[in-house]
Amino acid sequence: METYTIFRNLAIIIIFAKVCGIAARKLKAPQVVGEIIAGLIVGPSILHLVEPTTFLAQMAEIGVVLLMFSAGLETDLKELLKTGPIAFLIACAGVFVPLFGGCLLHMCFYGFNPIGDPGFVTSLFIGVIMTATSVSITVETLKELGYLKSRVGTTVLAAAIIDDIIGIIVLTFVIGMRTPDSSMGRVVLKTLLFFVFSIIIGILSYHAFKWIDKRWPHTRRIPIAGLAYCFAFAYIAEHIFGIADITGAYFAGIILCSIKDSDYIAEKMDINSYMLFGPIFFASIGLKTDIADFSMNILWFSVAFVIVALITKIIACGAVAKICRFNTSDSLKIGVGMMTRGEVALIVSQKGLSVGILKPVFFTSVILLIIVSSIATPIVLKFLFNHDHSKKAAA
Amino acid sequence: METYTIFRNLAIIIIFAKVCGIAARKLKAPQVVGEIIAGLIVGPSILHLVEPTTFLAQMAEIGVVLLMFSAGLETDLKELLKTGPIAFLIACAGVFVPLFGGCLLHMCFYGFNPIGDPGFVTSLFIGVIMTATSVSITVETLKELGYLKSRVGTTVLAAAIIDDIIGIIVLTFVIGMRTPDSSMGRVVLKTLLFFVFSIIIGILSYHAFKWIDKRWPHTRRIPIAGLAYCFAFAYIAEHIFGIADITGAYFAGIILCSIKDSDYIAEKMDINSYMLFGPIFFASIGLKTDIADFSMNILWFSVAFVIVALITKIIACGAVAKICRFNTSDSLKIGVGMMTRGEVALIVSQKGLSVGILKPVFFTSVILLIIVSSIATPIVLKFLFNHDHSKKAAA
Repeated sequence: METYTIFRNLAIIIIFAKVCGIAARKLKAPQVVGEIIAGLIVGPSILHLVEPTTFLAQMAEIGVVLLMFSAGLETDLKELLKTGPIAFLIACAGVFVPLFGGCLLHMCFYGFNPIGDPGFVTSLFIGVIMTATSVSITVETLKELGYLKSRVGTTVLAAAIIDDIIGIIVLTFVIGMRTPDSSMGRVVLKTLLFFVFSIIIGILSYHAFKWIDKRWPHTRRIPIAGLAYCFAFAYIAEHIFGIADITGAYFAGIILCSIKDSDYIAEKMDINSYMLFGPIFFASIGLKTDIADFSMNILWFSVAFVIVALITKIIACGAVAKICRFNTSDSLKIGVGMMTRGEVALIVSQKGLSVGILKPVFFTSVILLIIVSSIATPIVLKFLFNHDHSKKAAA
Repeated sequence: METYTIFRNLAIIIIFAKVCGIAARKLKAPQVVGEIIAGLIVGPSILHLVEPTTFLAQMAEIGVVLLMFSAGLETDLKELLKTGPIAFLIACAGVFVPLFGGCLLHMCFYGFNPIGDPGFVTSLFIGVIMTATSVSITVETLKELGYLKSRVGTTVLAAAIIDDIIGIIVLTFVIGMRTPDSSMGRVVLKTLLFFVFSIIIGILSYHAFKWIDKRWPHTRRIPIAGLAYCFAFAYIAEHIFGIADITGAYFAGIILCSIKDSDYIAEKMDINSYMLFGPIFFASIGLKTDIADFSMNILWFSVAFVIVALITKIIACGAVAKICRFNTSDSLKIGVGMMTRGEVALIVSQKGLSVGILKPVFFTSVILLIIVSSIATPIVLKFLFNHDHSKKAAA
């Protein structure tokens, strides 16, 4: 292959991803769904314009690491500590109930496997995909309704962030289980060691970055150092601790989220992401999906997958909120606010695919979940708030 | 190779490039020289931390195309038309005299070859490398001295831009000559066809972009469309017309340089460039350089190369300026202002390397030229202006 053909592929992907992304947004679906469909259209399934290449896969890998780094950078640790324990409990329930539900669902469809079996890890992984809440659509809806700063709003926001952190720990753990020779003890040990490493290096590098930040605020060297830090963390996580590179990148982001120029770094990362790496990542999911693999069985599984993913979040988060003395209506709102899924579900699936736990065809279920949850959440939330409002007005 | 090792390589390159770049700037040398040295340090020549891989080569190729696109975008067509014919004549002399000088120099060192022979193309290519003026250091010096808006200043600026355009046409032509079976006539025809294509598509797409720009000013879709446009042009130039992808990217930039949001596009491209692709490109030059190839012969050649490159520009541009009725002192200033070389010389050399016209060892000469010219230009210019000033004061 001549080097210049990469320009052809990139031009096609960028244009199709942007056009489909805009179209998706007009149809009230998330933009990333449009980008995935763009990949499906230009890929081997339909137009055969672009074949998946190693280069595109590597660019997509950079894209996913940048996305996770940005997610970490945008974490607001202060806000988290404020809402604290209640959000933590809601997040825990919101991770483990869907995890269990997803695992059980996969077993019902594809058979029960003993612990340690590759089939069991796949079942567990389907659960892991269900864990991560994507809060952006809920945030937008609450903002629109004027309830973002309400107790429900801040609780959902904090719970969603903690939920991501717990979700990524679970992912790390499940990924560690994939190699048959790795004993449970070694996986736990490596994961623990990684956390100890992250805390020590995190504290040291946080102060180093604060120093750079103070001496040369708003200079190019800050985002550049941040980017190198993210790549280094991703590499060390995977190479030394056998932990997913995305976990490393996410932690790198969390470590830097409290320095003064974190927004400045995030802004520069965002430009890199939305211009090139983001579209390539999402389109590459579509590229790899082969519609020939699609079957009725997968369709039924996907429908069940969506139902289980939504119901488990609503029930688990809602119930814990109720236990923590929210009223029934607010508890329901919290449950619904937590049910949206987005990029992170795709990123986790991609990781599962690349380490061989997941088959590409399961992306269909994940994409369906993202579409349904992103469309349903604003509608249901608006209904709940308006219903509440009119009841109060009537009283 | 595991995918995650790309993160290791990227982290190392980004950090070393930035640190060496800053160090170079402190020593009054151009930042890119620092980045090249960073590549040399981490590469197989010294530390063996990073090996040149296909992935890095492809990233570097994207980097070089982005750099040329930015160069095109930053062209000020209005300024060009204002200074017009005189700048055009100076630029022509500044391209063809060094082209001839460089070609002759290579022949003196490595033997004369008949026209059409690969050796002849290499000699010609050494001349092509000498053509492109990098005006940024001159601009900074003139700004500092307060002469940027003087007649000398605007003339140098315009001549340097026209010089780039003519230089790239010559490059296109010489690259076309590399395949032995391509007759001179075919090369001319393909080059002409590419220009006709560029003008037609250029006019159409200029209006399309103006329309997008008017409807959605300052939105993400503008730089995204710009990026796709640049990649598409680079691909079409090379695939259909057999013309260097960098020529395509440069033309894409010139086509878009007059739309309202061209600065906005350039700004986003810059972020992509300085964060990742730029450092990778310059470091990859260092990576590929093997100091083992270095010999006394190359050292002498490099010294002669630098002298010829500087003298030919000063004489050619200065003489034409003098003919165009600048006084002797101003003519000399114009000649000196035009003698700096920078990124474009490297980009052209890289192209020669990738198509097999040039050996990696010649990069030494180019790097030396960049260092010497960037350090000498400000010193000589300041001396000339101050000398002038004190003479006037004495009179």
